[in-house]
Amino acid sequence: MPSPAGTPEPPYVAVIFTSVRAAGDDGYAATAARMDELAAQQPGYLGIESVRAGGEGGPGITVSYWATEHHARAWKRVAEHLAAQRAGRERWYEKYTVRIATVTRAYGFERSAADESS
Amino acid sequence: MPSPAGTPEPPYVAVIFTSVRAAGDDGYAATAARMDELAAQQPGYLGIESVRAGGEGGPGITVSYWATEHHARAWKRVAEHLAAQRAGRERWYEKYTVRIATVTRAYGFERSAADESS
Repeated sequence: MPSPAGTPEPPYVAVIFTSVRAAGDDGYAATAARMDELAAQQPGYLGIESVRAGGEGGPGITVSYWATEHHARAWKRVAEHLAAQRAGRERWYEKYTVRIATVTRAYGFERSAADESS
Repeated sequence: MPSPAGTPEPPYVAVIFTSVRAAGDDGYAATAARMDELAAQQPGYLGIESVRAGGEGGPGITVSYWATEHHARAWKRVAEHLAAQRAGRERWYEKYTVRIATVTRAYGFERSAADESS
């Protein structure tokens, strides 16, 4: 996935998922890849950014971006995603926090342009 | 830093910083640690979460949490932080995006509790 995600002008919705993995893969990597693929097919999907450090047992942050909170909620209820959320609680995560936020401003920098733009 | 951050009940502000590092350390690690320390001393600071994969050259996500957007903006203008932002553009980052968002809902899971709470 490209990083940072190429989101449109605000406002839009960010779902910030911060987690600590349990030890062992136990199907995690394959399901994580499948969820990225499935999320990208949902209405209102704008992009996803995900970083995990230290492999298994390490902390991770995934931010998915959605056109509206309605779209973010609909993704949470997709059947295959609900099954993955359940497996996450049963097997893959020691702990996690999910925060739903409305992005109101954004700006960025890219070296090729060699300056900051808003 | 603890992950996930122990933030209070919403609403509060999240600043999502997604970046791709340039090659070489060149003072990056020391400054990043100093900025985490300095941020924690600012008014309205609620916590920070940061993950970088693959070391130098890899993607990273840092989310800092603030009581209000006013507090987040004040941190952006702290002199030592301004100098670090400038060095980031000159030396440390290939590209980055900063998104300012208002967190409206949050929930979490922790294995010791063995269930999900809101």
